[in-house]
Amino acid sequence: MKVVITGGTGFIGRMLAKRILELGQLTGPSGAPEDIDEVVLFDAVAPPGPIGGLDARVRVVTGDIADRDLVFGLIDRDDVSVFHLASVVSGGGELDFDLAIRVNLTGGLNVLEAARARGSTPRVVFASSVAVFGGAAMPKRVGDATKQTPQTTYGATKAIGELLINDYSRKGFLDGRSARLPTVIVRPGKPNLAASSFASGVIREPLNGETCNLPVKPETAMPVLGYRNIVEGFVRLHEASPEALGDDRAINFPSVTFTVAEMIEGLRRVAGNRHLGEIVVEPDPRIEAIVATWPSETDAARALALGLPVDQAIDPIIEAYIEDFLDAI
Amino acid sequence: MKVVITGGTGFIGRMLAKRILELGQLTGPSGAPEDIDEVVLFDAVAPPGPIGGLDARVRVVTGDIADRDLVFGLIDRDDVSVFHLASVVSGGGELDFDLAIRVNLTGGLNVLEAARARGSTPRVVFASSVAVFGGAAMPKRVGDATKQTPQTTYGATKAIGELLINDYSRKGFLDGRSARLPTVIVRPGKPNLAASSFASGVIREPLNGETCNLPVKPETAMPVLGYRNIVEGFVRLHEASPEALGDDRAINFPSVTFTVAEMIEGLRRVAGNRHLGEIVVEPDPRIEAIVATWPSETDAARALALGLPVDQAIDPIIEAYIEDFLDAI
Repeated sequence: MKVVITGGTGFIGRMLAKRILELGQLTGPSGAPEDIDEVVLFDAVAPPGPIGGLDARVRVVTGDIADRDLVFGLIDRDDVSVFHLASVVSGGGELDFDLAIRVNLTGGLNVLEAARARGSTPRVVFASSVAVFGGAAMPKRVGDATKQTPQTTYGATKAIGELLINDYSRKGFLDGRSARLPTVIVRPGKPNLAASSFASGVIREPLNGETCNLPVKPETAMPVLGYRNIVEGFVRLHEASPEALGDDRAINFPSVTFTVAEMIEGLRRVAGNRHLGEIVVEPDPRIEAIVATWPSETDAARALALGLPVDQAIDPIIEAYIEDFLDAI
Repeated sequence: MKVVITGGTGFIGRMLAKRILELGQLTGPSGAPEDIDEVVLFDAVAPPGPIGGLDARVRVVTGDIADRDLVFGLIDRDDVSVFHLASVVSGGGELDFDLAIRVNLTGGLNVLEAARARGSTPRVVFASSVAVFGGAAMPKRVGDATKQTPQTTYGATKAIGELLINDYSRKGFLDGRSARLPTVIVRPGKPNLAASSFASGVIREPLNGETCNLPVKPETAMPVLGYRNIVEGFVRLHEASPEALGDDRAINFPSVTFTVAEMIEGLRRVAGNRHLGEIVVEPDPRIEAIVATWPSETDAARALALGLPVDQAIDPIIEAYIEDFLDAI
């Protein structure tokens, strides 16, 4: 079978591709495990260099997800699964509303329509976000049954994507699942336009010996999940039976809430003798305003019942990053 | 100022136009009351004959709401308000998914974009529906904070419309409000493709001396509101201050729950000596399946706080229909 990962050259896309290649099989539209012979990483721009850890089954395709014909050309086999990760991120969507609608809404519809056109009811896993929650009436702890009143265009388009995944699944056009992700840490590389980018940066930059300008107060709390468990959660959500998901295909991913101060304490414990760059608290009202609209705790009863993994502490998340990205080089 | 009513030649559109002409003023984008000098009723098809009770301020325009240029041409003044009622209905959306997406989603986006393009932050009142609720986890009584898990494409597109209204309002592109309507009774004329059409038919057809084939069991309960209060609610929601609406612009309209049997009892009481056509119970599994996904009671705390009116009993709803549509002829 073929696996298409949109946003595939991004960090999570690449990690997911590696994990899928390692597994070698996923449940196909037939309902039985099928060997994976083709993985397409689709993204808006080509990666700066070769992607390590992949193999000859993988192909990178670049283009505009709002181009319907291009997207239909990616999803060109009946024995296919799609992981739809491509998205304008939270901070980016606040800067460019029209781009967020174009990529997240029009692009998302193209992916769903292309999967529907196969007629084989492919599994489609959609990366949603806890940014679907927000607003004055939001409870402190958001669960699978909490009303979605997003306060960013990013969150609004993710909530719309969940509604579409549910309806396309109900109609039998595809077999969809929406993964409502907390903030993913620790992302390697450079900061991005996500308002949550600092949650990785506050660990990554000091470990790289660089100064981190922290745009929020250290007491800021947010639900996070280490990328290893994010990737594993995507795979397990793909493998869950349609019956276990029922008529609401969107689930809160498991998460654990830390304050930024707790992340920094964990960093100091794990770093040991490593030299750490400085952390300078420089609150940015634009970032603080976005982060303030997000929930600080999530309840993930459905995900835990489906067997999705969760981190229990900050230290192993930081240790995994050091192992995968610092010591591995 | 100008008022544009999409779906304007439909029953509620025409009643709303009459009420607005009678009032003569609405709050304009300036925040002050403005005289209404132009009302456009936009719809997909021309009404079969002249519309009574209107005046020279009213113009009917027909066309495809998915035609962006056409919609921009309707909303061509800065001093404008829009009531966006045009929609593929519940039963129709289940029969033609693509049409529901085209009219409700693409058409809806055209209306929002045209209002945004004015730059004057026009008020836009969007007709949503309690069909945004549904699914296995839905509580018996749905409130303003109940999660939306619609089980029809109609409901899904209405929930998407609410999210867009909220986000366009948050961005200051327009000043939106979503009216989450219960089943409207008593609609005059012919049955339509709405799965709830029988709720009007079971009163209307017998009063016309015609046989009503009831597609659901008499014990079926549903939240309803008489059309006079629906129209009044639209006006009051338009007039509400942005501050009173906050960051969630969607509100459950008030409703009262009756079983079909209670509606029939009311009909017999009100009808007096009138000859009534027969009611034949002929359950239609397709209609029953759709109706079963809807909530049977709504809580409308926000609407009541905003002063939206509610019916207390079935008899006055039926009496109003007789007064407006039977005795008036």
